[in-house]
Amino acid sequence: MLRRLWELTEFPFHPEKLNHYETLFTIGNGYLATRGTFEEGSAGDIATTLVHGIYDHAPGTLVPDLVNIPNWLPIRIWIDGTLFRLVNQNDTTLQPPEGAVLGYRRTLELDHGLMRREVLFRAASGSVVRVVFERFASLKAVHVLAQRVEITAVDGAPEVVVESWIDPDVTNSGTRHWTEVSQNLHDSMVTVQAMTGQSGYRLGMASKLVSPYPVLEQPDGSVPVVSTRFRLEPESSATIDKFTTVYTSRDVAPNEVLTAAQDTLRSAVQRGYDTLLAEHKAEWAAYWDTCDARIDGDDDAQFAIRFVMYHILIAAPRHDDRVSIGAKTLSGFGYKGHVFWDTELFILPPLTLTQPQLARNLLMYRYHNLPGARHKAQANGYDGAMFPWESTDTGEETTPQWSDPQPDGTRIRIWTGDSEQHISTDIAYAVLQYWRWTGDDTFITQYGAEIVLDTAVFWGSRVEHKNGRYEISQQIGPDEYHENIDNAVFTNRMVVWHLQQALNLLDWLQTHAPEAAARLRHELKLTPERLNHWRDIIEKMFIPFDSERQIHVQFPGFFDMEYIPVPHYQPRTSSVQAILGHTRTIQSQVIKQADVVMLMALLGGTLAPREVLLNNWNTYYPRTDHGSSLSPSVHAWVAARLGLDDLAYELFAHAAGIDLDDNKGNVRDGIHGAASGGLYQALVFGLCGLHINEAGELALEPRLPEHWKQVSFTVYYRGEKRRLTVTNPVIGTPAA
Amino acid sequence: MLRRLWELTEFPFHPEKLNHYETLFTIGNGYLATRGTFEEGSAGDIATTLVHGIYDHAPGTLVPDLVNIPNWLPIRIWIDGTLFRLVNQNDTTLQPPEGAVLGYRRTLELDHGLMRREVLFRAASGSVVRVVFERFASLKAVHVLAQRVEITAVDGAPEVVVESWIDPDVTNSGTRHWTEVSQNLHDSMVTVQAMTGQSGYRLGMASKLVSPYPVLEQPDGSVPVVSTRFRLEPESSATIDKFTTVYTSRDVAPNEVLTAAQDTLRSAVQRGYDTLLAEHKAEWAAYWDTCDARIDGDDDAQFAIRFVMYHILIAAPRHDDRVSIGAKTLSGFGYKGHVFWDTELFILPPLTLTQPQLARNLLMYRYHNLPGARHKAQANGYDGAMFPWESTDTGEETTPQWSDPQPDGTRIRIWTGDSEQHISTDIAYAVLQYWRWTGDDTFITQYGAEIVLDTAVFWGSRVEHKNGRYEISQQIGPDEYHENIDNAVFTNRMVVWHLQQALNLLDWLQTHAPEAAARLRHELKLTPERLNHWRDIIEKMFIPFDSERQIHVQFPGFFDMEYIPVPHYQPRTSSVQAILGHTRTIQSQVIKQADVVMLMALLGGTLAPREVLLNNWNTYYPRTDHGSSLSPSVHAWVAARLGLDDLAYELFAHAAGIDLDDNKGNVRDGIHGAASGGLYQALVFGLCGLHINEAGELALEPRLPEHWKQVSFTVYYRGEKRRLTVTNPVIGTPAA
Repeated sequence: MLRRLWELTEFPFHPEKLNHYETLFTIGNGYLATRGTFEEGSAGDIATTLVHGIYDHAPGTLVPDLVNIPNWLPIRIWIDGTLFRLVNQNDTTLQPPEGAVLGYRRTLELDHGLMRREVLFRAASGSVVRVVFERFASLKAVHVLAQRVEITAVDGAPEVVVESWIDPDVTNSGTRHWTEVSQNLHDSMVTVQAMTGQSGYRLGMASKLVSPYPVLEQPDGSVPVVSTRFRLEPESSATIDKFTTVYTSRDVAPNEVLTAAQDTLRSAVQRGYDTLLAEHKAEWAAYWDTCDARIDGDDDAQFAIRFVMYHILIAAPRHDDRVSIGAKTLSGFGYKGHVFWDTELFILPPLTLTQPQLARNLLMYRYHNLPGARHKAQANGYDGAMFPWESTDTGEETTPQWSDPQPDGTRIRIWTGDSEQHISTDIAYAVLQYWRWTGDDTFITQYGAEIVLDTAVFWGSRVEHKNGRYEISQQIGPDEYHENIDNAVFTNRMVVWHLQQALNLLDWLQTHAPEAAARLRHELKLTPERLNHWRDIIEKMFIPFDSERQIHVQFPGFFDMEYIPVPHYQPRTSSVQAILGHTRTIQSQVIKQADVVMLMALLGGTLAPREVLLNNWNTYYPRTDHGSSLSPSVHAWVAARLGLDDLAYELFAHAAGIDLDDNKGNVRDGIHGAASGGLYQALVFGLCGLHINEAGELALEPRLPEHWKQVSFTVYYRGEKRRLTVTNPVIGTPAA
Repeated sequence: MLRRLWELTEFPFHPEKLNHYETLFTIGNGYLATRGTFEEGSAGDIATTLVHGIYDHAPGTLVPDLVNIPNWLPIRIWIDGTLFRLVNQNDTTLQPPEGAVLGYRRTLELDHGLMRREVLFRAASGSVVRVVFERFASLKAVHVLAQRVEITAVDGAPEVVVESWIDPDVTNSGTRHWTEVSQNLHDSMVTVQAMTGQSGYRLGMASKLVSPYPVLEQPDGSVPVVSTRFRLEPESSATIDKFTTVYTSRDVAPNEVLTAAQDTLRSAVQRGYDTLLAEHKAEWAAYWDTCDARIDGDDDAQFAIRFVMYHILIAAPRHDDRVSIGAKTLSGFGYKGHVFWDTELFILPPLTLTQPQLARNLLMYRYHNLPGARHKAQANGYDGAMFPWESTDTGEETTPQWSDPQPDGTRIRIWTGDSEQHISTDIAYAVLQYWRWTGDDTFITQYGAEIVLDTAVFWGSRVEHKNGRYEISQQIGPDEYHENIDNAVFTNRMVVWHLQQALNLLDWLQTHAPEAAARLRHELKLTPERLNHWRDIIEKMFIPFDSERQIHVQFPGFFDMEYIPVPHYQPRTSSVQAILGHTRTIQSQVIKQADVVMLMALLGGTLAPREVLLNNWNTYYPRTDHGSSLSPSVHAWVAARLGLDDLAYELFAHAAGIDLDDNKGNVRDGIHGAASGGLYQALVFGLCGLHINEAGELALEPRLPEHWKQVSFTVYYRGEKRRLTVTNPVIGTPAA
């Protein structure tokens, strides 16, 4: 309990939350991540390890998957011939008699990236053992995975067998990706080689069991197994370690994946568990030095903010700038590991502030994928770079056009890949935000500007000149309940912002990096005509606005649809959309997440005077379903900026519960990465009001919940580490 | 969420915790309490209202029950002909089509003694309603129970029917107590009269539904029902109130119970819900003014301490000094409402400190029951007053001699009523503690001294003079795993303490209240010979002590039994006793709760030098199972006093989870009253080190957990309200 602000705990075992907790207890190191599946397996579990960048498009599927690699976790334990497992079954006529679980506790040490599980187990013989499992994915040596099992004889003197293997029989929810799978066992080292069927990535894995007792080889089964067996004296313990290494042809040459895994494994075994763990912890300590935000006066909020930063950190690539973080991080199969706007507008900003090098890696992923974006623009008849709504390793559009089959067998057309075009501007926004906070002129000159400018080129070719103004048809904004609409205020207004930023950037380059400016003018055909066209668009873009009500209009016709009193739908455990049904919802004013509120978050006071912002809030907030996990955090942020303190906190708490409480019921599919990054932004930009003021200085404008005493956090600003503390002026007023 | 430190919340509905939460959400006012059962009922629920003092011994049962009175909660709602309920069933062929629960949230406002439940419900017709229930048992007008239902048409314009009644068809887990039940319905008032079969207590209840729409009478069914029906316009609401009153022949003359209920009901209806609620809240505010303890730096601990004080307060009789608090308070059938040592040593001390008048009521219960205690002494061949281990309204011993049947049909002999004789000393301890803290000389002179002295008389006749010393055979101490043992150190040592206190008290009376001293000397036969005998016992009592190991010995022979490494049995979800079985446990050194640690809590540094106290701890703590809910809090308290800070906090957290987390799995039977009071004592006496020093002044000797910043609380000392604050000197050290 002293560590409760750094530890996620499951006590006792909650079998009904097996998949939810598999996601929460994910460990990782930015190279790969592994769900909190048990070593011994459990019925209904989803053993998953995802390695950044390893995608494969299997036959008969619509789009590529981020591929589940062979399972490195298996450790099977027998106590006096009784199989150790948490859930016993009655259909075991051929099995030895069953054991009983007498106790269970699992913790995830957020500060150390370590999962620990303790189980008190009684064998059919009557022997009682205490089994403690630990695991971590080394943050220092990212190809190394370490496990430890400590078994103590609590009652009796049991005979113990510990078996270990790598399980290559894995799928992505039933889809097989691995071909040419070969396994070997030599010198007590288990190895696996395999290749993804369509994309041809090579994989090599190697594993060893380290035991104070002899390690036996069982090479002849369907899977090679190593084991160790021993008898424990009463009250004595045995400690067994297992090390596994992973390489792919993204890391080394295709024919070297196995030798790399073997070499690294030998080194890991030699260095040993304690040394590896000490190095790993030291890396984590460095992470938290800048990433921890301390909230004084609210333990739930404190834990939640650490939990989300943990999950962002384990998913953020450290040594690789050609991969990015999928919507569900590396913690589940949801959205198949694809990269959305979630990354740039939600997950990336906390890294821009606290780990700028990692943010840069993520932006470089987009830079490297400009060819795919140009290809998409060209295929759709546009100029420049049009980023895909869903992106994988190729940079091509990988949004499926059709949903998985519904209960009645039909599929629903998915329009986001066609129409959610704001992604290109979202990426430009992230690039410019990174530049503004880091002052990384090298990046903007060499890479970032090309992204911002070529996506501007796309918009210049995309807008439609009609009715004496510029319009954009067939869009989907953040409010995905309303599809293929004309003149979505979010898109139209952000395009104006984008083109203006592009012009400003070009001016800056002209002054500070004229060669880069010349190169980009040439390569991207930034002719004076094109730039003048941009200026014309900025001037004449149609921004739907109701001057009588003094509000932005989400899109023309929005208010003609059925009004639904969303606030009355409380307390609800599903979305209003699910309650009303799809058809009625899309014909109503119910909003998934408010486009106009998102505009207010991104553009702040530059969007409109404060009265209009408040009018906007009062109009759209009561229509908002929060049907997206992205919604509550953004709304918390904006509510805080508008001085709506209680509402801001309520929304912050809502966002904090998305993964921890599984309040959308889908955490089994993976962590909501955007909700995680959004929570940090709600804290720092929203409740603390961190911003860069007109003088170019960091400034705070806090609106802390009344029971919070203090918030402190660390950000990098133009390369300098700044430790900031916000103290609540109302401190000392009893909350009672 | 802003109120999370004052609110217990269930969100969403947890059907698997139905009975656990019924207990947690109990409301009450010291006259009665009602479990958090739903108005509309639910399969498997345990609708229970217990009124202090109404016991009945039904035919065929071993001992009396605290009687479950007719259920005042029933409110049944129909929405467009669909029955409102949370769990729908498939066996309803004769029922209208079923509805769907779209959302649920329940809160218990600890500061206001109010339970609120919000449900979003869709009828089979498609109409969606939001239903909000509130209930409270007035703390100001303790015979008045108030309910409110607000129904809002969220979608559609439903026809609504609300029905209300009192359900007299109640039992105590199947045992019927009510006879001569008569029901009536007149002038839209529902009434019930009944009498307990054996004890003959009369009950009168009356109830009214207050609706803006006509109230209809349905007097002809098996139970008289009133109802109101109306149609709701879209987005409109209706508010219906229900008031119920309860009187028994303990409150008024037997033939007046119904008229009292009717008169009070008419007055309650006239005053209305809002007025009653405002008065109720004002009373609660006065309670919390002295009873709240504020813990700064640990939200879980903060909530837990409020939760336990809430449950003590709703169970503590305010206007009645002939009843006391049962081991499970008034919140469940566990231990049949009987009063144990739990009251005097665990529940009473927090009231002595914060609500001395309520503590006095509880002590007066024992005073009034001295005749029963004298009868027990006499029946067992002793002098003086020998209090029963389990006590009800008569003061007679009501411990069952046999358990309920085990799975194999056999019953186990229960020895506590015979052998757990320390109860008499526990009561004397509470009397003297009350006197020391309050300075209530009137009480000690008129009532308390008689308890202390006549229980001393009992011990004088109880001890056995043999082997040239005094011994006590056949005892059970706090460690109930070891029964009928000779020379339990807890009992022997506390008897020495008791007799010394009795002598001291008599001296004080001689000086300050000579008439009372003379009266007691005469009535209790406190002859010089008797007092000399006490002095001889004090001098020659056998106190088992191992001078080589410098420890107290729980009883001679204890260390000859099997040693079990209790600390290895972690993490366990059941007791070591349950794991090892009864037979092996009682033949081992596994301790339910440590007698010697309890001694250390009660006698502190007067027991032994600090080295011995530490030796005692190091000996007994590793043998302690905490098989009793009383154990963790006492151990937390003592650990803090010994400077074992981390352990103290771990045990404090364990104690805090007993009801909230149901970590013993039996909260369905009621709140663990002793664990509740123990938690407060662990905080105030243990972690804060509150004591009266040798100069007679209040003193603090804090050992706060390192992450706690500050604790503040209020106690009465000799009639003066003292607000105390303990600040942690290590504040500011980051916990990371």
